[in-house]
Amino acid sequence: MNASEKISALQSAMKKNGMAGYLIPSADPHMSEYLPQHYRARAWFSGFTGSAGTLAVTAEKAALWTDGRYFIQAERELAGSGIELMRMNEPGVPKVEEWLAEQLPADSVMGLDGKVNAVDAVEKLEKAFADKKVSVCDQDLVSEIWTLDRPAIPATEVWALGVEFAGKTAAEKLADVRASLAKHHADATLVSRLDSVAWLLNLRASDIAYNPFAMAYCLVLPEKAVLFINTKRLPEEIRTALVEQGVEVCEYEEVEQALKGLTQPVKMLYEKTGLSYRLYRTLKENSAVTLQEGEEPVALLKGVKNETEIKNLKNAHVKDGVAMVRFAIWLETQLAENKRVTECDVDAWLRAARAVQPDNLGESFNTIAAYGGNAAMMHYAPEPETCAVIEKHGFLLVDSGAQYRDGTTDITRTYSTGELTEEEKRYYTLVLKSHIDIARAVFKEGMAGMHLDILARETMWREGLDYRCGTGHGVGFVGGVHEGPQSLSSRGTTPFVPGMTVTDEPGVYEEGKLGIRIENELLCKEYKETEYGKFYCFEPITYCPIDTKPVLAEMLTQDEKNWLNAYHAMVFKTLEPHLTEQEKAWLEKACRCVS
Amino acid sequence: MNASEKISALQSAMKKNGMAGYLIPSADPHMSEYLPQHYRARAWFSGFTGSAGTLAVTAEKAALWTDGRYFIQAERELAGSGIELMRMNEPGVPKVEEWLAEQLPADSVMGLDGKVNAVDAVEKLEKAFADKKVSVCDQDLVSEIWTLDRPAIPATEVWALGVEFAGKTAAEKLADVRASLAKHHADATLVSRLDSVAWLLNLRASDIAYNPFAMAYCLVLPEKAVLFINTKRLPEEIRTALVEQGVEVCEYEEVEQALKGLTQPVKMLYEKTGLSYRLYRTLKENSAVTLQEGEEPVALLKGVKNETEIKNLKNAHVKDGVAMVRFAIWLETQLAENKRVTECDVDAWLRAARAVQPDNLGESFNTIAAYGGNAAMMHYAPEPETCAVIEKHGFLLVDSGAQYRDGTTDITRTYSTGELTEEEKRYYTLVLKSHIDIARAVFKEGMAGMHLDILARETMWREGLDYRCGTGHGVGFVGGVHEGPQSLSSRGTTPFVPGMTVTDEPGVYEEGKLGIRIENELLCKEYKETEYGKFYCFEPITYCPIDTKPVLAEMLTQDEKNWLNAYHAMVFKTLEPHLTEQEKAWLEKACRCVS
Repeated sequence: MNASEKISALQSAMKKNGMAGYLIPSADPHMSEYLPQHYRARAWFSGFTGSAGTLAVTAEKAALWTDGRYFIQAERELAGSGIELMRMNEPGVPKVEEWLAEQLPADSVMGLDGKVNAVDAVEKLEKAFADKKVSVCDQDLVSEIWTLDRPAIPATEVWALGVEFAGKTAAEKLADVRASLAKHHADATLVSRLDSVAWLLNLRASDIAYNPFAMAYCLVLPEKAVLFINTKRLPEEIRTALVEQGVEVCEYEEVEQALKGLTQPVKMLYEKTGLSYRLYRTLKENSAVTLQEGEEPVALLKGVKNETEIKNLKNAHVKDGVAMVRFAIWLETQLAENKRVTECDVDAWLRAARAVQPDNLGESFNTIAAYGGNAAMMHYAPEPETCAVIEKHGFLLVDSGAQYRDGTTDITRTYSTGELTEEEKRYYTLVLKSHIDIARAVFKEGMAGMHLDILARETMWREGLDYRCGTGHGVGFVGGVHEGPQSLSSRGTTPFVPGMTVTDEPGVYEEGKLGIRIENELLCKEYKETEYGKFYCFEPITYCPIDTKPVLAEMLTQDEKNWLNAYHAMVFKTLEPHLTEQEKAWLEKACRCVS
Repeated sequence: MNASEKISALQSAMKKNGMAGYLIPSADPHMSEYLPQHYRARAWFSGFTGSAGTLAVTAEKAALWTDGRYFIQAERELAGSGIELMRMNEPGVPKVEEWLAEQLPADSVMGLDGKVNAVDAVEKLEKAFADKKVSVCDQDLVSEIWTLDRPAIPATEVWALGVEFAGKTAAEKLADVRASLAKHHADATLVSRLDSVAWLLNLRASDIAYNPFAMAYCLVLPEKAVLFINTKRLPEEIRTALVEQGVEVCEYEEVEQALKGLTQPVKMLYEKTGLSYRLYRTLKENSAVTLQEGEEPVALLKGVKNETEIKNLKNAHVKDGVAMVRFAIWLETQLAENKRVTECDVDAWLRAARAVQPDNLGESFNTIAAYGGNAAMMHYAPEPETCAVIEKHGFLLVDSGAQYRDGTTDITRTYSTGELTEEEKRYYTLVLKSHIDIARAVFKEGMAGMHLDILARETMWREGLDYRCGTGHGVGFVGGVHEGPQSLSSRGTTPFVPGMTVTDEPGVYEEGKLGIRIENELLCKEYKETEYGKFYCFEPITYCPIDTKPVLAEMLTQDEKNWLNAYHAMVFKTLEPHLTEQEKAWLEKACRCVS
């Protein structure tokens, strides 16, 4: 079936079930950003393969919402499907619930699968539908249509992340969660996000590409915790260790029944955007459960790295930096020797360079190796049949990262592969300015991404430029490459505190022409405490030179130059002990002062 | 009675009425920031005379909450009263509702006057009290105790602001409000803020010092509007003109009865922070009224100045700038001639210099003329008995403004009166940097104060400094000197749009030592539109040189110097036609380039 046939099949099923509309979000039962193949229904129906998107279908129409990172890709992938592309956050584009409220007839029924829709999303729909009395019906139509080629629910083997990496045991983390619940006047919660379950119980697996998680829930109760997981995948010694730490183990499918069966009165904290509508309803119908809406405590605890994690993370970044330096030397040599290098070669070379590093567990996401105009697609992934050959002019953007047993990395460098135009140099220097202006920020306790974001963007705005994505995101620890709650964006409301990490990755993207991004991971740390309060700053923990060949030094302020030179001095000192003499010589040159 | 006797009297009345607590906010029935004397109950009971504060009293204790602008003043004024000072937004200080929830016994009753408490404030209390089942009782105890010396409700004569100043007639503005209500799916609202009523009907009076408003409500219905006002104060021709524009006139006291008596079904928009709890309850009990919470549409319409207002406003600022230049020359001369000048002399001289300007209606707030350490009190007002004599070293901070028939002004300059220490120069230059960094900002459509605020503060934070107030606030048009909805602060959520004005007034305040503030009014205007969106910037509309004698030029970036020099060139060009030759010569010197 092609996309328009699949939409037609869905519309038939809708008609049969008396539904005027159907919504397919990009989610699994755990509201993951990156999904097991089994749950990629939105991609299967629409043909749009980006990581974020929502498909809404009515009797007559189909439309897909995605954000600025994916406008170009979605346009291409949706071509010919009859599905309208809705560019989120662009002026005049309705929200999905607004569009549905407009399209659906009064008193009609709209369907969705409550297992893969968050409470929040359903509430927004219900609110938007109130005037027209459209009701929401929780029914899974996807499984009826997507049958033959649908991948199974994953069940990779679970492994334990030792306390020498995690810094705290599951029992200690459970105690922290209970203390945090008490502050919210609650005593229970269902941890349903996969990154949160993984962190909380120090468990990892490989259910989702690049994301070392297992499909599981953890119910935290006052006296015990219950892990819901396919037990076949759980090695006996891990099961024993969990029980010793106060964690019972049940089958994954038993979660709904267990929530129904709770008899001890509990005050349960839940997060609207993290809990599925199905489980929310189950909890709501249980009179022993008092529901209390609030921020999931695990996310915030997990967002602040402990000292062991920070030590490990820095070590992971040193290894990653060494791989990146080796890659840069290889690339330079290939180009100097006029050898043919494709985007796919870059991808493969980098994967190999990381794979030989100690404790490497693979990549943390699909490498974006994008030459020239391809780099304007923020999440471009080269394919062997179509990938570009690197030419000796312009820019190659490489955004990549790895999972190590001691941390997760995410780095972008944009390399000049030869001659550059003045415009290319100007764009590159603007991106570097933006990057530095966040990296050197000093800010007061209480400040969140929404307060800091302008420090990166103002330089762009002054030129009438902007990038259609956040400035940066949190990164997990042996976890997801996008993990909150902190973020650097005008919508980031979680205040930064020491121990949080965040990426700093402003960019310039000109369709069909170029893409430039410079990305480091930053660690929030203490700067100063005075009578006026506590002040924080960032420490870069990505150790890799930033290409200075394209820099127009006269566009940098003295403060920006000072930051760049200090950063390069630190990079050299950090990586030097791990390099050969030849590599060291290369790095010394790459880390030379800009004046 | 002194403060502690007044508190005792209140505690007796509470006991008699079965109340365990009582709350006295700083508000009148219109939730005004600056209050008619009649409504200054919080000041009368506590002795603290600052413009913002809340008094909470229990059977045993009394406490007063105020913000950073007033910490020093409140400490002084509360001394000996037995009232505890609660420093708002400082770490560890509970919110008033948290404190009350802690202090009040379970199942008790807390009293307040529903006429002068906003819906929002009462809802916060009710939420905080839910666990302990404390209930809120709407009863006015203040009037029982504050009797003899209580000033009457004001009733100054009303005058009309011509359309040549206001730019739009009341009928046109009512049409705008109805269009805005329709966008919110509402068709009625009770305009209860005094600045909003004044703007909407182009009426002014002098009920509150410095605020040219009349105590009044305006009920906007689908087909008509009703002004509730003491009709004795309304000249006949204004009444006739109002009726011609579709506005009925009723007595002020009839508002509650009129809301009760509404029979036509209406969907009424109300703002939680602007409507009194009393009138909210009245509306809620009327079955013809469907209440809908949302932002008051008048505030946003009023916040965007129309072209006529902008033209007038610039003219008002030219007059104000001329008065400020004359003042600076006078001050310089007095000091050069070794004459005695006190803070009160400064205040009087400035008032006189403005009073002779065309269409001057008086001051827009109590002038802050503060020398040396006095300037650390952000809202210091000199008193003849205690005011300081200006010495020939350090700084004199002068924050003043005027009401003109063509606009409201607000300006702060800090003058070096002689020798300065290196530290003083450094602080001054930091303030100037902060000021400029906001003034020259370029930002994208959608950005609000919370996004921009850091541009001013980062310079301070890097030095471990901060100012305990917003960076700036909106200013009314022949209106309040603090008018929203826009503001420059980490809590400002209203996006800036062209036509909005805001002050830019960062500062450094070191207790007992100095206060430095530099304040201009900025007009938001279009900067550029590209494929990435609309970009805005600010134009300063305050025309007055900034003292450059204390500037450490090496601390300014080239961009900052360029802004300063361009500003001074613009000031000179703007004011020059209105000055004598001698004044012009002084201004030319004051506007010299900093390099």
